[in-house]
Amino acid sequence: MNIPVALGERSYQIHIEAGALLSLDGLPGAAFPGEIALVSNATLSPLFTAALARRLEERGQKVLRFDMGEGEGAKTLATASSVFDAFAEAGFSRKGAVWAVGGGVTGDLAGFVAATWMRGVSFVQVPTTLLAMVDSSVGGKTGVNHPRAKNLLGAFWQPVGVLIDPLCLKTLPRRELSAGLAEVIKYGVIADAPFFEWLENNLDSILALEGAATTRAIARSCEIKAEVVGQDERENDSPGRRATLNYGHTFGHALEALHVGDERGGFLHGEAISVGMTVEARLALELGTIEKAVGEELLARQTRLFERAGLPTRTPDLDFDAAWRAMTLDKKNRGAGVNFIVPKRLGEVVRVEATRGQLRAAMRD
Amino acid sequence: MNIPVALGERSYQIHIEAGALLSLDGLPGAAFPGEIALVSNATLSPLFTAALARRLEERGQKVLRFDMGEGEGAKTLATASSVFDAFAEAGFSRKGAVWAVGGGVTGDLAGFVAATWMRGVSFVQVPTTLLAMVDSSVGGKTGVNHPRAKNLLGAFWQPVGVLIDPLCLKTLPRRELSAGLAEVIKYGVIADAPFFEWLENNLDSILALEGAATTRAIARSCEIKAEVVGQDERENDSPGRRATLNYGHTFGHALEALHVGDERGGFLHGEAISVGMTVEARLALELGTIEKAVGEELLARQTRLFERAGLPTRTPDLDFDAAWRAMTLDKKNRGAGVNFIVPKRLGEVVRVEATRGQLRAAMRD
Repeated sequence: MNIPVALGERSYQIHIEAGALLSLDGLPGAAFPGEIALVSNATLSPLFTAALARRLEERGQKVLRFDMGEGEGAKTLATASSVFDAFAEAGFSRKGAVWAVGGGVTGDLAGFVAATWMRGVSFVQVPTTLLAMVDSSVGGKTGVNHPRAKNLLGAFWQPVGVLIDPLCLKTLPRRELSAGLAEVIKYGVIADAPFFEWLENNLDSILALEGAATTRAIARSCEIKAEVVGQDERENDSPGRRATLNYGHTFGHALEALHVGDERGGFLHGEAISVGMTVEARLALELGTIEKAVGEELLARQTRLFERAGLPTRTPDLDFDAAWRAMTLDKKNRGAGVNFIVPKRLGEVVRVEATRGQLRAAMRD
Repeated sequence: MNIPVALGERSYQIHIEAGALLSLDGLPGAAFPGEIALVSNATLSPLFTAALARRLEERGQKVLRFDMGEGEGAKTLATASSVFDAFAEAGFSRKGAVWAVGGGVTGDLAGFVAATWMRGVSFVQVPTTLLAMVDSSVGGKTGVNHPRAKNLLGAFWQPVGVLIDPLCLKTLPRRELSAGLAEVIKYGVIADAPFFEWLENNLDSILALEGAATTRAIARSCEIKAEVVGQDERENDSPGRRATLNYGHTFGHALEALHVGDERGGFLHGEAISVGMTVEARLALELGTIEKAVGEELLARQTRLFERAGLPTRTPDLDFDAAWRAMTLDKKNRGAGVNFIVPKRLGEVVRVEATRGQLRAAMRD
């Protein structure tokens, strides 16, 4: 299945197909220049990357491999610099392509490297986590973290193609599968009520990684994100269409910045987002942005779906002052209050500005 | 005077005016957001940057200043990282603008920082050297060096405006003024015979920094570069229109890579280019790309103009094998021979591929 991402001369397709990782169908010619640099990590290399490298070599491609560290802590300018050193050492040319094989961290860093190596080379995303498949691999955001803030350095750099093989999810830890589902559920709430309802009816099949349901969940998520990104590629509009993707993220990012979590440790991104969506849905009720009965039903259905997916919905104990400070420092906020994207009804969100007191009240519910 | 650079939605103007540095006329609104980060160096700060900062503050702008090191050795990812640290420390937002005040090194590095800070912020070029005014500030190439090669990392990132104040040249060392003239003379040879002739007639006025002549030399150079860049923004065509700008640069870059120079030390970029243009004009004669009489006249006039401008034209002693290796490693060359841009007649150049033996013969002349 192909999902088009319409961005004028930077348009490309997301190809979703079980087995695509080794069939390599669905990628354009620009993905296969003389040399291909596979940026991945040591966990994924034996699972996917080594086999992919052999497959590419069989096709006559020259392959260069770089395994980076794992986790947000590895997404730094220092890691990018190590990749640049390896590229320089290997004489990697500007006619090469960089392929990211991994999750969001790998995709963001490899994309930044592709955007800046010799002022930009072809880039291909091969996301292997659900979160990367439905979120970070679509939209062209690349970047690395700075000690002061996540993704402070980066570029908009669109891939020439995205290859999604749902079979990769078979080896994904269950907790990470759940975390990816938070973003899938988000797409239903922000843009597509029937998709939300379909998720309610098919969540068990997705959790069991049943082929058709998994592919549909990924494809519809990519479609919604691609449509939003196509309308606001560089997040220029303010408040732009792209901002609607931030439902759950204002509060969620604060949880991440404060390293708040539950009994399993710090939240994964998707877990922070499910808590964030819960708090922000309550904020919509607090502000009266959503009709009371409608909002309560939405909150109940969203919470139930998160719980079935194994995602947290309770607000953990946290330093409210520190969380508020983190939200006001976020690069998207410049006013006195903090901007949130909250539901107006199932399938539609709206931007609101909330005060400290309003957020506090929403958290107490 | 305004020179338009036509790049679709990325179009901008180059404003050239004596005194523009402090009048700040000719820049668009996007150059003046809430905060302006002035990236410059310690030599230029007392000459221009401090006064510019005061002027901006008088206008109500919040100004952040960063003085970087000087010379190609400072154009590194490590320096960029220091700028990022300073920006993070100061809370510099994505609604700020980065202004480069200085020569090509400052412009390239500050442009790379502007391209990658929070995935790209407004950028303004305020070139203070002749070379930066007529060459590096036009065209959107930004980047930093890697120990293995110059400009290995970078981005295409167009400024929102370029402000050229020819009065800045009054404090420029004479040797650097001469070096800038190599690129000015190049524009005549590659694209505009009447401009070349005008330079022959007005070189003394330019060397004396007489206002009208200096402004015209800068403006016509910018116009020619802007026209070429407008046709081939990202150097995609191969051999593209933008490649014509490389006359003198294939051999010149090898001289720079080998740190070859004359009795004054390693060549400045413009000095390497004047030697490179001399050798490459001879190569055109060697290859028969240019008619013998026409080529000999062109070479004589070009050499005379370089000499009057205080530029070197003799090939220094160098390790030919190492020079040839440097040229074959250049990212623009992939075939067996090396590509050169050579004159066909005054005002027109053409791309040729030359063998080792042919270049050697041209150097012996």
